Formats: sequence, C-alpha cells, structure tokens
Amino acid sequence: MPPFDLPEGDPFGPHNLPYGVFSLPGSADRRIGVRLGDHVLDAGAAALTLGSPYATLLGRPTLNPLLAAGRTAWSDVRRALTAWVTVPSHREALEPLFHPLPSVTLHLPFEVADYVDFYASENHARNVGQIFRPDAADSLTPNWKHLPIGYHGRSGTVVVSGTDVVRPSGQRKAPTDPAPVFGPSVRLDIEAEVGFVVGTPSPMGSPVALGDFREHVFGLCLLNDWSARDLQAWEYVPLGPFLGKSFATSVSAWITPLDALDEARVTPPERTHPLLPYLDDAQEEPGGYDLRISVAVNGHVISEPPFSTMYWTAAQQLAHMTVNGASLRTGDLYGSGTVSGPAERERGSLLELTWNGRDTLELPDGKRTFLEDGDVVTMTAWAPGPDGARVGLGEVTGRIVAAD
Amino acid sequence: MPPFDLPEGDPFGPHNLPYGVFSLPGSADRRIGVRLGDHVLDAGAAALTLGSPYATLLGRPTLNPLLAAGRTAWSDVRRALTAWVTVPSHREALEPLFHPLPSVTLHLPFEVADYVDFYASENHARNVGQIFRPDAADSLTPNWKHLPIGYHGRSGTVVVSGTDVVRPSGQRKAPTDPAPVFGPSVRLDIEAEVGFVVGTPSPMGSPVALGDFREHVFGLCLLNDWSARDLQAWEYVPLGPFLGKSFATSVSAWITPLDALDEARVTPPERTHPLLPYLDDAQEEPGGYDLRISVAVNGHVISEPPFSTMYWTAAQQLAHMTVNGASLRTGDLYGSGTVSGPAERERGSLLELTWNGRDTLELPDGKRTFLEDGDVVTMTAWAPGPDGARVGLGEVTGRIVAAD
Repeated sequence: MPPFDLPEGDPFGPHNLPYGVFSLPGSADRRIGVRLGDHVLDAGAAALTLGSPYATLLGRPTLNPLLAAGRTAWSDVRRALTAWVTVPSHREALEPLFHPLPSVTLHLPFEVADYVDFYASENHARNVGQIFRPDAADSLTPNWKHLPIGYHGRSGTVVVSGTDVVRPSGQRKAPTDPAPVFGPSVRLDIEAEVGFVVGTPSPMGSPVALGDFREHVFGLCLLNDWSARDLQAWEYVPLGPFLGKSFATSVSAWITPLDALDEARVTPPERTHPLLPYLDDAQEEPGGYDLRISVAVNGHVISEPPFSTMYWTAAQQLAHMTVNGASLRTGDLYGSGTVSGPAERERGSLLELTWNGRDTLELPDGKRTFLEDGDVVTMTAWAPGPDGARVGLGEVTGRIVAAD
Repeated sequence: MPPFDLPEGDPFGPHNLPYGVFSLPGSADRRIGVRLGDHVLDAGAAALTLGSPYATLLGRPTLNPLLAAGRTAWSDVRRALTAWVTVPSHREALEPLFHPLPSVTLHLPFEVADYVDFYASENHARNVGQIFRPDAADSLTPNWKHLPIGYHGRSGTVVVSGTDVVRPSGQRKAPTDPAPVFGPSVRLDIEAEVGFVVGTPSPMGSPVALGDFREHVFGLCLLNDWSARDLQAWEYVPLGPFLGKSFATSVSAWITPLDALDEARVTPPERTHPLLPYLDDAQEEPGGYDLRISVAVNGHVISEPPFSTMYWTAAQQLAHMTVNGASLRTGDLYGSGTVSGPAERERGSLLELTWNGRDTLELPDGKRTFLEDGDVVTMTAWAPGPDGARVGLGEVTGRIVAAD
C-alpha cells in the first residue's frame, strides 16, 4: 500500500526519514513532516494517533523544539518514527496521515538563529585564488591551512527551496571604470554547499570540543549560497562579503539527521600542515561525509561536487566557531563553503566552472557564463546508506527572477 | 515627590524616556520599563493602571512587539508616556510603579535578529589604514567613499550592558612567528559605536529608501564592539572579521527612541565624492546625530568620540543594507562602526589611541596598550535636547574576565 510500497533502493526509504515543515492546501497551519518516498507523514498527528510521548515535540510549526531537545531525544524520536513506518500495525493506523509531496507546501523547517558560511574546500579556495590573484606565489592565503575561514551571513534571508530569487542590484566597478555604477548584478552565481543545523545550544565562554560535534549538530541540508560576484568584488575589501551574498541563501526543505548518515562518514583529506590541538582530528572519529552532490541549471547537470574532498570538517568548523567562547543557539546554521572537487566537472560555482566568465558552459538552451533571468538552479545529493542503499538529501532549487 | 523631583536638566527627564526591560528582585518576570531619572517605570503595569490601550504592547517581556508596531504606534505610545510622567494625576497614580534603578536587574531589551556592523567613520578608517597599510598611497580602500562598508556579526552574542566579557582565546600569528599559536588574546580592544534598532520589517526584494529611515528604525543605543585585534589580524583575509569579534558585543540597556533626538539631528560631513542616487542624501533631512560619547576605563575617561563626525549616516547604512533586496526584520541591529573624531582624544578604539600598542595610555592604575583582565570599560553619551536640555543615552559597560 502507498506510501509503503517504495521501489527497492528508494533514497527516501525508512533508513532516511528527513524532517521538514509543511502545510496542507487551504490551511496556514504548519506541521512537522517526515518524508517517506514521495509522501510526507504528518508527524505530530502520527504521534497523537499512536499515543506517543513525542506528540509535544512533533506537534509544532517548526523543528526548533525538536532541535533543542538534544541528542538523546533525537535518537529516541527517530527510533519511534522508524517503528511507525515499518511495523505493519502502525503503518496501517497512520496511512491517512501520509500526504503526497506534490499536494503540500514546504516551508523553512526551522527558525535560523545565526548563519555562518565557511570556505572549506581546498580546490575551491585554490581556484578562487588563481582567478583573483593570478600572480600570488600561493593560491591559498597564509591562514587557510591553519583554520577554517568563515564569516557571518544574513540569517533573515535564508529561504526554503523553491523560493524565487530576485536578481540583486548594487554597486559594481570594473578596474577600468572611473567610478562605480549601479544596476542589477551581471555576474550572478551559485555556490553548492552543505548546511549544518545546530540543535543543542552552548553557553558563552564554553568552546565546543571536536568530539562533541554530534551532541550539538542535529543534521544537514543542501544549501545554495547565491553570490553576486560583481557586487562582492567591489565591496569585500577589507571586511568581507556583504551585499554580494545577503540577498538570499536557499536551503533544502528537508533536514537529514546525522543519524541517517553513519555509513557516509569518511576520513577527510590528509592534513598537510600540523593543526593546533583544538582542530586536530587525527584521533577523532572520521569527520567527513561522503555526499555526492549534483548541480543542474534548467535540468541540465553542470557539475557533480564531491563533499568528501572538503579539507575542513563540520566538526572542525564547530570547534573553531566556538573556540573564542561564542555561544551556540538552537537554529544556528553553518554552511560548509562551496564544494569543489579536483576535476573541472566537480566545481561548485559558475565562477570556477567558467573561470570568471572566460569560458562558457554549453547548455541545451544556450551558452552561460553566469545566471540569466529565468534560470532554475537545482542541487540534489545522495550519500551511501545501510546495505548499499542511498540516502537522499532534499533538493534545493530556486529560479532567478529579473530585477524590477 | 520622587521620582518626579528631578534636578533641573536631568538627562533622563520627561523629554527622554528610553525603553528597557527589567526584572524585580526575586522575580524572573521581565517587564518593559521606561527610565525617568534614576527610576524605572513599569510601563505595562502603568498602562493597566490607567486603562491605556497600550497595555498589550507594553505588558511584554521584550520590546519586540512594540518595535514591530511601527512609527505611528511609537509616536502614540511616547505621547501617552509623556503624559503619564508629567500630568499630576497620572504621576500620583503611578508612583508605586516606579522602581529605583539600583533595585532592578536590566536585561537585553529586545531579541536581536540580524546584527550588522559598519565602518563609517572616516577618521577611524584612515587611522586603521595608516596603522595596517603604512605604505599605501591612500589610507582608505578605493570603495570607502562610495559605499558604507559593512559586514554581518554574531547576533547570538549581543549582550546587555553589565555582562562580563571573558577574554577570548584563539589563533594569532605575528609576521615573525613560524606558525600560529593558540591562547588568550593579548590585544583585546574596544570599539565605541552607536547601535540602531530596526522596528518595522521590510519584505525581500524591496529596498528601503533613504527617506524611509524613520519608518523602519525605532531608536538607538550605545554599543561596544569588543575586538581581539590579534585574532582578527590573522583570520580576516579574505572574508573579514569572525572570531576576533564574535565572542561578545555589548549594548546599553536603554533604547533611546529617535523621537527623543530630533534636536540632535545634524548635517553629516561634506561628501567629497559624488554618491549614487540611492545613497545621495543632499536633498534629504539631516541624517547625522550629534551624540557626544565618552569612553572610560576603570572610571578614567580616555576618549570623547563625536558621533557628528561620521561620514556615513544611519539612513545611508539602512538604504545600502537593503538595496540588494535583503529584507529587514524587527530586532535587526546595526552598529555605526567605531566612532573616531579628528583629534587624538576622540579616537574610539585602543588600536587608534595607542597606535596599535606603539604608545601607552596613562591610567591612574597604570599604563595600558590594550585591555587587562579586570578592566571595566564604560561608555556614556548625551545629545542636545529641547530647550538646552541634554538627552542621556544609557551607558554600556563591561568587565574583562580572565580566560579560563
């Protein structure tokens, strides 16, 4: 019976169970949903139906209370959900609470507290260095191999997959321009990233150790860090990206719990420089994740960035972000930074794929250097799961709308 | 009768009426308070006592609902409060609802949404340029006169005045060090700033025009953007400040409404470069504010930065921050950037006051280059008010606590 008769190897089978927030047609009520195949289970209603103690955590309009509940609760709730979708008597009782995905509206699944973006792919950083500083002796800045470089972004413009992105306007100035000009960005780009969602908070003054990553981070999502390269180039010295990034950041509607990704854990690339103790993960469990990302423009795949190549892990990023005593809040979101593998077809931005517009991408509907109005960018990903199955990540998609 | 028998010219008289959030001894209940002299009026209880329609807006544990209510409500509530503290019959009825300031605990008065920090003082930017790039032809970066440079900071570590600040630890690397070292910051600094608090939100894709500043911004506060210069110097290329700033940002407990500062409005410094239309304030009402700031370490005044010297106004900063379509949320906070006047005694950071540690400051308790453990930094300010009165801003103070 649907939704349980999934095709073998469905990447959203009972081994996955990502969380989202949805509403039904004609209703403004937001509910926590759990995805199974192409259906959404109304998790709060399911908990009530089965008399589960998790009805309070799941009967909410946002994931934040569940995120705040902590690692033990996350595991307990997941164990319960697994039983609900696999034990025949439960399945039967819950069947009316499954809604076909196309029939529901998906919302931003949690309230974003602080948003931080990192810069953790060595291939990406080297490509960017070669493009913007071709004469530098080293394409990496001197700090790059010693700490995961990051900066704060705008949490108020994090939007859920499917939200249109209006082409941002702003100042740009080519080296040959006598003065900056104002107008819609002419170098609108994507950045294929993975976002990590913090559940358990930490108090000010208490750094989070590398080994405590899984106590604090609930799960991950795909993230598109839309970037206006022309705005960014003119504004970013000396205080970093601002308007070139703050117009929109898209995240997938589904948060995949770390518990669904145990088989995807891999050792990160060999560390070429000694690390300070708070970042040294040589003795830790593998901190990388083998996520195979695919980036498509208007349905045409342009890149397949491999997350396993990231130099800095999410655990290292969390340890670094808090080593100065900065607190964590439930709902903090941090992006991995653009994921780029060593091969050309593994680059996670148009900046790299077209070498800052020098080259063009051939799409079925024409050439591209940067994004055109109407372009739809969609990122998908999967990870190795139990028994050869794949764990699907929710897609993140967005369409570029012309500036007014 | 107290609290109404204020000394003549009290900077917290009925012409001021800043808003805060307080709790009474032995109670966890947070209440909106309005300051009159050295007393706090329980504003929600006052509204109930007088049967005011604003009891719902004022009977809250945070200012956010009032901030969200918009300009007309702000003016109406202020008019009501003015009557409550000046009309004798109201004063008599409300006398039991005034609490001496020392008897209450003050809290962060609003929930911070996004926090942005600017870099708007030309004197500060030139000083920093000369210190860090002594060989550059121009101490300002090429973009400085064309746009208000800003970046996002960490909203989760914005704390109320009086909160201790633990000395942050992190990586630093002097040019002569072969590799970075880890430890407590040895160049812990202050930045004297003014923070602007957004009330009325704006939707994504809709820039806020210069002239709409007062529709969106409710008021201002003093802000100390604590900065670990050694951490910052090593990390900030190419993506800007991160851990050097994110450990703590202190704001005053009192938010002064813009309506209390009409007499303090001044024309900003002459613009030396033509501005793009969205930033051109030549035809706008004066966008500067004449705020006289004082910075003291352990009670000894070290600097008196004049806010009227800021090149970029808060209205320009708001227009810039949203020109790419970024939305505003109620509770967004943005800092002016360090306020430094042209004179040595007007510099708003120790970095500038000691020229990056080359010089020392003589304090009664010894010399300083940067902050020592136990140092208490206190910023106060006033502005010209009606009829020669001063409008006091709430102080922002914080004590440095040794790293663990």
